Amino acid sequence: MSLDLSNDPHRRYNPLTGEWIQVSPHRAKRPWQGKQEETPGEQKPKYDRECYLCPGNDRAGDARNPDYDSTFVFTNDFSALKPETPSESLNTSDLLIAQGEKGICRVICFSPRHDLTLPEMALPQIREVVDLWVEEYTQLGSREYINYVQIFENKGEIMGCSNPHPHGQIWAQQTIPDQPAKELKQQTQYYEEHGQTLLGDYLDLELERGTRVIVENDHFVVVVPYWAFWPFETLLISRRPFARFTDMSREEKEALADITKQLTVRYDNLFEVSFPYSAGFHPAPTDGNGYPQWHFHQHYYPPLLRSATIKKFRVGYEMLGTPQRDMTPEASAALLQEVSPVHYNER
Amino acid sequence: MSLDLSNDPHRRYNPLTGEWIQVSPHRAKRPWQGKQEETPGEQKPKYDRECYLCPGNDRAGDARNPDYDSTFVFTNDFSALKPETPSESLNTSDLLIAQGEKGICRVICFSPRHDLTLPEMALPQIREVVDLWVEEYTQLGSREYINYVQIFENKGEIMGCSNPHPHGQIWAQQTIPDQPAKELKQQTQYYEEHGQTLLGDYLDLELERGTRVIVENDHFVVVVPYWAFWPFETLLISRRPFARFTDMSREEKEALADITKQLTVRYDNLFEVSFPYSAGFHPAPTDGNGYPQWHFHQHYYPPLLRSATIKKFRVGYEMLGTPQRDMTPEASAALLQEVSPVHYNER
Ligand SMILES: O=P(O)(O)O[C@H]1O[C@H](CO)[C@@H](O)[C@H](O)[C@H]1O
Ligand SMILES: O=P(O)(O)O[C@H]1O[C@H](CO)[C@@H](O)[C@H](O)[C@H]1O
Repeated sequence: MSLDLSNDPHRRYNPLTGEWIQVSPHRAKRPWQGKQEETPGEQKPKYDRECYLCPGNDRAGDARNPDYDSTFVFTNDFSALKPETPSESLNTSDLLIAQGEKGICRVICFSPRHDLTLPEMALPQIREVVDLWVEEYTQLGSREYINYVQIFENKGEIMGCSNPHPHGQIWAQQTIPDQPAKELKQQTQYYEEHGQTLLGDYLDLELERGTRVIVENDHFVVVVPYWAFWPFETLLISRRPFARFTDMSREEKEALADITKQLTVRYDNLFEVSFPYSAGFHPAPTDGNGYPQWHFHQHYYPPLLRSATIKKFRVGYEMLGTPQRDMTPEASAALLQEVSPVHYNER
Repeated sequence: MSLDLSNDPHRRYNPLTGEWIQVSPHRAKRPWQGKQEETPGEQKPKYDRECYLCPGNDRAGDARNPDYDSTFVFTNDFSALKPETPSESLNTSDLLIAQGEKGICRVICFSPRHDLTLPEMALPQIREVVDLWVEEYTQLGSREYINYVQIFENKGEIMGCSNPHPHGQIWAQQTIPDQPAKELKQQTQYYEEHGQTLLGDYLDLELERGTRVIVENDHFVVVVPYWAFWPFETLLISRRPFARFTDMSREEKEALADITKQLTVRYDNLFEVSFPYSAGFHPAPTDGNGYPQWHFHQHYYPPLLRSATIKKFRVGYEMLGTPQRDMTPEASAALLQEVSPVHYNER
């Protein structure tokens, strides 16, 4: 009897982190009597006077937003990291270990419009967001004590987002965070063995097969990775193996705006709802080292499972054992491939 | 200027997994305008004819529960793992790697009463649950193809639990899951260097200090670990460094029932609500090897942050960077130490 990945329980290896996920395809059909999420409410206004991200409004303390008409970035009023923290290390018997951590947290408003999200924005507007990502990565990364710049977006209440105004965050800091540190280790090892980037070789395999490819253009490809944990998790990979936002050509910046729109439109169309996710870029560290082994990419981690109201819970076994999924990545990819490339609000 | 762990952003090292968490104590005070959880509904009935876990009721397919009057265990009708899966490995270029995985999934009903949870059960009843954990670990672990037995409980809708009848689960399988595999590596390295178990030495430090100790008895101690990620995460550690459920004495089994009640009562009292969590044991693997380095322990991962309706979101930065917490583990421990040891329903 041979293993059937579309039906038999199995493990898959994530070469980017060196960890495994567990797949239980046959379980996709089990009934669900548990928690149902609320769907996002009615139409939002273009401007909300209560919103602390809208142009001209007051923020925490004495801060007030300018009357911005494109993107707008500011230092988080409740930053998790601060520049002036002492870099001291504490260690008791190698068991109680702590280190001061310096950093800067920023908030990026994608648009002055309170009611838009990335898939609903026009390409030139998304292009401005790309420019801001590049600029912030460059500026923050050039500071002596910033060695990693984590750019991300929490979209939707279900992803802990406390304000519906379209925005992302940046946490830039002294040490390389846990996930990029794992990816660095794995990418370095692969590069030393093969003389190619791990994601470059992986992308070739995916393009050959096509089954897990969702959208692509001249410079980027988005796949449901072979080792996806979240039901509709995707991975955006640059065709050219570059490492940093600062390595991007003008064409690549345009292509990044384009592929962002293509992907998020498909996400929204899947359940015809503003699709929640956490997404974030993994460029190379900004510690001044060269990183030929690092391949620029972005992760999308959306929580929804079967509908706009049923999500995947990362609990019990997932916390204590191994991340587990019910549907195969191939089945998810097929659904994302099927949906219309035109946003349901524009049809 | 020296580092103040109760105020300055810092990282802490988790020696059990080899990973870091980030602590931002000053952020505990930020306002929250985001998602509010629902609190569990009104009083539940002692018996619910619609519940597929209540005694005498029908389950999926043709299965029907016996009229049990203590605990009851059965094979999950929607098992994520199955005994008959072929153990084949697939590997394309070290990038697409999958392995068939054998296993068994079981469901444990803690009580015939639909309306009780562990903290509301009497000690002799909890003692019966302990006996069942021991028995299942022994039985499942003795099968040739079962090398790890993961016993856990998802409590509360917010933790993906789809049935309020008090129950836990067991996923027993061929390979050692991700989390215990990390713990094995770290415990082995520590034991080789120090000739003592990592958690034994850690427990000594915690008992000396006392600040993070929540409850204890002759055989077990519960602490908020120095490296806790979840706001009220705790770690139950055996005083004696044994590795397996099968190593426990009668006194230790009784003490495990006692400490389970002590801890879960305090959890419920914290916000005067049936406190949601995922909890699970990490005993040694059941692959037949000796594990002198393995120290028996249990993790409690509760999601609530500030009240019965505001939870911690593990999103964006946590998924892409490093797990991050706002309150210090010491501040959480102080709150858990303060609450009454008597359940709010019994006062
Ligand atoms: O097995 P259940 O209770 O149906 O499902 C629950 O527990 C499982 C094991 O932790 C998780 O994989 C599921 O996401 C969760 O909803
Ligand atoms: O910074 P915010 O939007 O207030 O908070 C949100 O994003 C953070 C970064 O991912 C998380 O740590 C918080 O749990 C989440 O609620």
